[in-house]
Amino acid sequence: METVTKLTNDLIASYAKAGGINHLDGKNLPSKRVVTALTCDLLRLLFPGFFDEKLIHSSEIKVETAALLDSLIGTLEDEIRKALEYQTPAGLAKKDITHEAHKLTVEFLGNLPRIREVLQTDVQAAFDGDPAAASKEEIIVSYPFIEAITVQRLAHELYLKNVALIPRIMSEWAHARTGMDLHPGARIGTHFFVDHCTGTVVGETAIIGNHVKLYHGVTLGAKSTAGGQQLRGKKRHPTIEDRVTIYPGATILGGETIIGAGSTIGGNVFIMDSVQPNSLVVYDGLDMRVLSKNDKNTAVDFQI
Amino acid sequence: METVTKLTNDLIASYAKAGGINHLDGKNLPSKRVVTALTCDLLRLLFPGFFDEKLIHSSEIKVETAALLDSLIGTLEDEIRKALEYQTPAGLAKKDITHEAHKLTVEFLGNLPRIREVLQTDVQAAFDGDPAAASKEEIIVSYPFIEAITVQRLAHELYLKNVALIPRIMSEWAHARTGMDLHPGARIGTHFFVDHCTGTVVGETAIIGNHVKLYHGVTLGAKSTAGGQQLRGKKRHPTIEDRVTIYPGATILGGETIIGAGSTIGGNVFIMDSVQPNSLVVYDGLDMRVLSKNDKNTAVDFQI
Amino acid sequence: METVTKLTNDLIASYAKAGGINHLDGKNLPSKRVVTALTCDLLRLLFPGFFDEKLIHSSEIKVETAALLDSLIGTLEDEIRKALEYQTPAGLAKKDITHEAHKLTVEFLGNLPRIREVLQTDVQAAFDGDPAAASKEEIIVSYPFIEAITVQRLAHELYLKNVALIPRIMSEWAHARTGMDLHPGARIGTHFFVDHCTGTVVGETAIIGNHVKLYHGVTLGAKSTAGGQQLRGKKRHPTIEDRVTIYPGATILGGETIIGAGSTIGGNVFIMDSVQPNSLVVYDGLDMRVLSKNDKNTAVDFQI
Repeated sequence: METVTKLTNDLIASYAKAGGINHLDGKNLPSKRVVTALTCDLLRLLFPGFFDEKLIHSSEIKVETAALLDSLIGTLEDEIRKALEYQTPAGLAKKDITHEAHKLTVEFLGNLPRIREVLQTDVQAAFDGDPAAASKEEIIVSYPFIEAITVQRLAHELYLKNVALIPRIMSEWAHARTGMDLHPGARIGTHFFVDHCTGTVVGETAIIGNHVKLYHGVTLGAKSTAGGQQLRGKKRHPTIEDRVTIYPGATILGGETIIGAGSTIGGNVFIMDSVQPNSLVVYDGLDMRVLSKNDKNTAVDFQI
Repeated sequence: METVTKLTNDLIASYAKAGGINHLDGKNLPSKRVVTALTCDLLRLLFPGFFDEKLIHSSEIKVETAALLDSLIGTLEDEIRKALEYQTPAGLAKKDITHEAHKLTVEFLGNLPRIREVLQTDVQAAFDGDPAAASKEEIIVSYPFIEAITVQRLAHELYLKNVALIPRIMSEWAHARTGMDLHPGARIGTHFFVDHCTGTVVGETAIIGNHVKLYHGVTLGAKSTAGGQQLRGKKRHPTIEDRVTIYPGATILGGETIIGAGSTIGGNVFIMDSVQPNSLVVYDGLDMRVLSKNDKNTAVDFQI
Repeated sequence: METVTKLTNDLIASYAKAGGINHLDGKNLPSKRVVTALTCDLLRLLFPGFFDEKLIHSSEIKVETAALLDSLIGTLEDEIRKALEYQTPAGLAKKDITHEAHKLTVEFLGNLPRIREVLQTDVQAAFDGDPAAASKEEIIVSYPFIEAITVQRLAHELYLKNVALIPRIMSEWAHARTGMDLHPGARIGTHFFVDHCTGTVVGETAIIGNHVKLYHGVTLGAKSTAGGQQLRGKKRHPTIEDRVTIYPGATILGGETIIGAGSTIGGNVFIMDSVQPNSLVVYDGLDMRVLSKNDKNTAVDFQI
């Protein structure tokens, strides 16, 4: 017990000393656990029957939907209120926060039908773009992409309303599950598809057109963040025009970099300049060195 | 309450309008939750004592195994039946589905001893191939690879029997946990090992020989999927012959691409053509530009 | 029932035949579930108020901390004892294991204040290095990096004490959640930051200086592991000096490879040789082939 007391005292002293990584006596932050549960419920509302344990019949769907919305609306409003209290948008008076939280919640839920229409185009794009998909049901039930893009489109709505923390908690939940990091700030067109997802990163200020197909490991990133916090708000990530396909592992950087419509970017390419519409970008195969291991002069510096 | 009613009505209207992303009144789909639980139980059967909370003694193993199989067999049969009802294989009459589900379940479980023998070669390959592994126990308990390859080998059996959805639900569960996407369709030889796993993708029609070692971020993918659903069933992914090693981030595309036996593929290489046996493929180091930041003429377009 | 009996007998026979992947009658291994729960509790101790459901007030923090430590200390000691029994460090007598487990547990928990001080520099580096971060709270609550680096710094302490299995179970838990594989053995300086994390791998013998920034998909790996278990303990992974930035997808291999202080490594670069301090390494843009799809002579071997 003496040991516990000493360890406790040392930690308490450290809480006082190494500040900035405690959250004591502060404003209540939105809860990761609650935001995660809300996100799961929103997935059920957007794809009825897919994420439920039992089959839903049309005759029950109205009652089920009303019940789900009823349980969800108050909880979501609470979390949004906490986010507004934590970081109050300019021009919003303290006394109006509760009212604003209610308004934003209803607006957000009112957008679900519109989000569903866009998600329908994403499911179609996934089906059209992947011969390994046997059915749209297979896509919705098993493709990580659906979860990731749904969460991004939901989080984007809250991002546009300047709700702090919740969009990032939502998108990092999807990131952890799918390996794909779609920032809530990114503007993404219709008929979007990312195959496999793992390692793909789309930055905060990226703009993506319609009918864009990415593979895993694609980065739409910033050229340099040496400017740090001074770059906040500035467009730092690329623009991808309509009907572009980007193969696995390609890295495209910079806020002024535009990949022209209809272009195809080969795998593992590193791009920091704009590309004309209808281009095909690959590394030149001649630069690749293919050596026989049987040749004793092979002076390559790794063992085999 | 009025708000909830309006939101409900709008969503219900959207369910009618944006079709294809609802699953109402349909056939009961296999449950993600149940398939996940089954997969965990199968891992316990394949590696007895490793994924159990308490130590198992030889004297108890028969009783434990029988109990686990007994609880598992009916549940698995139910999920397989749902999959067969959802997508009935050609030539299977509706009235025979229940019988077929039972037959497939028993066959599948009967294959577990054979799968164990192959998994034993994978564990051996991991131990031989990674100096960071202190013991085989460490590999089985902590390496994501073991989970991923076990699930792939299990899902592959169901894939070969044309069971819909379940193999992909299983493999996407492993994908989410390990970051590696091994399609249930891929044919993978013995003594396989993937170090680190994250971002590695092996496509549906890939063929991998024996003693192949991959690293994370390796893609065995399709050259183009512009043909979309018309390419279903066609060999679209590469063949990797025996004793090939592929370093992190290499992307190898195309159904006719063959990496010859005994070859080594360097990191970040992008390959769309076959490579002779015993080759070493790297990008030529001379193409790399190394500049001093002290040189004011450095005309490279990114800040540091 | 007959079916279950036959399946059971076949599996039991396989347990006898395919050895090395059973853990029967062996020493009790540390429990994945318990080590995971411990890791979550340690996160709560290191960042008080961030991973708790309710807001913590300064007036309660001492009681809360003591309670958490009190519940944690015995469990951690049990797991460390199991690890020491499983793989007893040279020179430790069997009879001294219980005492050693207690000693290591207290030492480990006594290091938490020091670890907090280093983590504070990591949070600062993340905030300074990412314009997308609106606040340090956002970083601690939502960035996968914080979880990954915290777990690595904790696991590193146990690694240094030769505690088997537990460090890898901890780091693979973080790997599964964040997609980043930071080996417990790596020596990592202060003010470290990895943006996005997914796919980044840092090997067991890597050494990383202060103020180093990595992106996702970066590999600090071994040149060759063909030597297998004979390479155990040898330095196989690179050294990254102070103030180096490494862009997404770069692969750096080899135990003698040193990236000199102040250097910047471009995206997707593959490096197996040392680089002088203050260098900028990129592939030469001229080697990139940009073709117009309108040009019928485009002899590139993939369809678009």
